Amino acid sequence: MSQRKISRAVIKRLPRYYRYLGDLLDMGVERISSGELSQQMRVTASQIRQDLNNFGGFGQQGYGYNVRYLREEIAKILGLNTEHNMIIIGAGHLGTALANYNFEKNGFKTISLFDINPDLIGRTVRDIPIRSIDDLPEFLRENPVDIATLCLPKAKAKDIAQLLIDNGIKAIWNFAHTDLNLILPKDVVVENVHLSESLMRLSYTLKSRQQGEEE
Amino acid sequence: MSQRKISRAVIKRLPRYYRYLGDLLDMGVERISSGELSQQMRVTASQIRQDLNNFGGFGQQGYGYNVRYLREEIAKILGLNTEHNMIIIGAGHLGTALANYNFEKNGFKTISLFDINPDLIGRTVRDIPIRSIDDLPEFLRENPVDIATLCLPKAKAKDIAQLLIDNGIKAIWNFAHTDLNLILPKDVVVENVHLSESLMRLSYTLKSRQQGEEE
Repeated sequence: MSQRKISRAVIKRLPRYYRYLGDLLDMGVERISSGELSQQMRVTASQIRQDLNNFGGFGQQGYGYNVRYLREEIAKILGLNTEHNMIIIGAGHLGTALANYNFEKNGFKTISLFDINPDLIGRTVRDIPIRSIDDLPEFLRENPVDIATLCLPKAKAKDIAQLLIDNGIKAIWNFAHTDLNLILPKDVVVENVHLSESLMRLSYTLKSRQQGEEE
Repeated sequence: MSQRKISRAVIKRLPRYYRYLGDLLDMGVERISSGELSQQMRVTASQIRQDLNNFGGFGQQGYGYNVRYLREEIAKILGLNTEHNMIIIGAGHLGTALANYNFEKNGFKTISLFDINPDLIGRTVRDIPIRSIDDLPEFLRENPVDIATLCLPKAKAKDIAQLLIDNGIKAIWNFAHTDLNLILPKDVVVENVHLSESLMRLSYTLKSRQQGEEE
């Protein structure tokens, strides 16, 4: 199946389809029409048909979509059919919270945390050990790691990102309040979660709505 | 200053400008040209000029932008010049991590957490009390709250969102793995942070990059 023509906008919507289809399966729904899915997701039925046609038209006239099959195909496109090993750099509140999150169900497995704080090193979070950042290069030589999650103060984020890249990491999930774009080689990908900026967008939308300037 | 013509795309970029200008101030930089800002942010200089012209052209030919002034203007647009009171529903790992986050520096102050777990109720996080969810309506009657943060399992998110809306909340920062769009009145705004979906996008980009299909 070629993915060459799939736009970024469609890709952005895929995780949401994946979630909805999972919810449907949990409720025992085995097939669904684009019209029903449209109502639930508040997306037009034609958008849904267009989006899903990108992957070879899984829907059948008069039958709708096979929920389980469609979800599996989307999983393959998103790379969720292979397991990903993750590490978390920074075992503070956020790093610990992420280590406690159930990302395993989508194949993302946290295998170690790292920190510089001697009080934390040697402890565990859900049986996942917290190691010293000094042991990171050796750990990466000995363990396959697909994704490194950065939960660090921004002052340290770039140096640690460089260390990760120098040791072969190709994907960074960045919660540090800074961009890493200046130091990234082309074969390294970053997904940013800037919580403060999300909160600012909420603040803006709230203010605009209250002023009656939007929608 | 009219905001009527500002596009969503520009608004999405504003928090990033705000962050960069803050970093510049921290480094003692008082003025900057669109060219310099362009290099740092990896955005074209003409994009920067276009974006910032939306707010009345703060730049001056041959001088550039006054960093402090520009940052203050962006703060006003984003609503950061007023303090926002927040509550966090769900005092688990993520809720606690958010309560520990330094959102105050941008005017977002967490004044209470809420939970249903009797073991947590009565405790504090950074001196912020964890209250029973049963006390939520009374708390909202007696305290001005601008933003409610949802850090709940998705099974409970919609009921609690409804309770918040019934008690006057107009802005929800949603970390629950579900959309709230079905129940929202028009005057209530939501900003979603779907961590699993962010991770899936990273997984997709990594896979595409490795297959050499992207960029």
